[in-house]
Amino acid sequence: MVGRTLAGMRVLVFLDGTVADPETAHIRVDDLGLLRGDGIFETVLAADGKLRELGRHLDRLERSAAMLDLPAPDRAAWERAIGTLLERWPSDRECAVKLVYTRGPEGTGMPTAFVLGQEIPEKVLRQRVDGIAVVTLERGFGPDVAERAPWLLLGAKSLSYAVNMAALREAERRGADDVLFTAADGSVLEGPTATVVITEGRTLRTPPANIGILPGTTQGGLFGWAERAGWSVKVEPLTVPELRAADAVLLLSSLRRVTRVHTIDGEGLPDSTEVHRELVSLYESLY
Amino acid sequence: MVGRTLAGMRVLVFLDGTVADPETAHIRVDDLGLLRGDGIFETVLAADGKLRELGRHLDRLERSAAMLDLPAPDRAAWERAIGTLLERWPSDRECAVKLVYTRGPEGTGMPTAFVLGQEIPEKVLRQRVDGIAVVTLERGFGPDVAERAPWLLLGAKSLSYAVNMAALREAERRGADDVLFTAADGSVLEGPTATVVITEGRTLRTPPANIGILPGTTQGGLFGWAERAGWSVKVEPLTVPELRAADAVLLLSSLRRVTRVHTIDGEGLPDSTEVHRELVSLYESLY
Repeated sequence: MVGRTLAGMRVLVFLDGTVADPETAHIRVDDLGLLRGDGIFETVLAADGKLRELGRHLDRLERSAAMLDLPAPDRAAWERAIGTLLERWPSDRECAVKLVYTRGPEGTGMPTAFVLGQEIPEKVLRQRVDGIAVVTLERGFGPDVAERAPWLLLGAKSLSYAVNMAALREAERRGADDVLFTAADGSVLEGPTATVVITEGRTLRTPPANIGILPGTTQGGLFGWAERAGWSVKVEPLTVPELRAADAVLLLSSLRRVTRVHTIDGEGLPDSTEVHRELVSLYESLY
Repeated sequence: MVGRTLAGMRVLVFLDGTVADPETAHIRVDDLGLLRGDGIFETVLAADGKLRELGRHLDRLERSAAMLDLPAPDRAAWERAIGTLLERWPSDRECAVKLVYTRGPEGTGMPTAFVLGQEIPEKVLRQRVDGIAVVTLERGFGPDVAERAPWLLLGAKSLSYAVNMAALREAERRGADDVLFTAADGSVLEGPTATVVITEGRTLRTPPANIGILPGTTQGGLFGWAERAGWSVKVEPLTVPELRAADAVLLLSSLRRVTRVHTIDGEGLPDSTEVHRELVSLYESLY
């Protein structure tokens, strides 16, 4: 079944291969994914009928599952469900493939698992071209707490995203499109749903995952390829002044791909359209 | 309809008054409560057919809704739905009444709202009598960040509880029943689903909500009543050494009521059964 609503086309496939109508109810009220945000997810981009960085996404799904003590994901089953979804999706349209995996209804011990294909929001398509304004918002944590306190699930892509959503609403209130979270010591962490990358000359730089952020799948793909194309890559802590001094500030995610930041906290950054164009073309050549 | 499963009796009522079967699906996969933990909840105790601290719970639901930019809850509708639930619940059995309010399916702007009645878990009933062992776990935040960074939703009872659940699993791994979260400066915050209260002579003491914790509904009820019964009450920051030096350490929540902590991080606390008995009897006399 293929649903078409205000939000565009959608395809829903459960992990057992069942194709279902996304406009009807499939989830119980006592699903712990709902009652406790107790589950994990990934968002994979499919473009021209091909999945981008699926291996990295499934690796991260496995890591997230381990951090939340969920049963290890059955990679082959996820791949099959995604395949079933893509058979129903027109290959000339990009698809945001969301993988959702929850602890399931309370007391049943049976996880809930499905993939949901959705269209890329208009806003994201526009931002890929126009770039974005971001605000820096405190995330509250020190950069050293993630390794010491694994129960904080920093680095797991859990369904408990209320803070990420609240931060995006705060950005909107401030007239911006997105957020860069900063740690208690002022160092730069990540966006609520994206990785931060800067360029300094011919060097790409991003903060390390052990400060309590997600390892970026798009960033991982780009860095590997950029190295082979003669760029240097650095994974090390980053400060807000270093963002301002960079040649380009970029937000990377599956849906955004490589998006240029043109404004931080209301102040314009130097024009980075040229290096952005080069990196987009490098990134696109990957697939 | 009344469902009865391994988990015991359950009653489900939607905010529009519809009574539904909790064992079947009612929630869409794209409900933002599920995909983003984007919603709020409350758990109210009904005992002897009477609701405890409903006013405080609805006040807190309103505050949480405001913090998450959700439409203000319709108190009368919540009260009616809870009333419908209790009509179907045997008045000689305690009921955990969960109020759940999410942003609803993506793009619809129609919140999801229901009340779910469940039995009190056996474990909680036992802990009320036997007391509990807790471990202290770092929560990562400083005590001053909540007021400065409202997008962190500290003090909102959101559905994004994955960290709270992970902390409880960590406690279990360490052979304990529950958790006391501590702030980055070592001060005591709260349990993942409970308020911390200590007694020092004839004084009850709990940390202030502005350090980034939930205002406790059971604590609020108890403190008001205790003052009238001649206790002093203090709302001020608390350290772990102060817990160890207290006459009694208590965890309070709707379901736990007033539960005694007998062990912190593997070390036994002085016997507090007598003052605990007095406070339980004071608390019960409230209703």
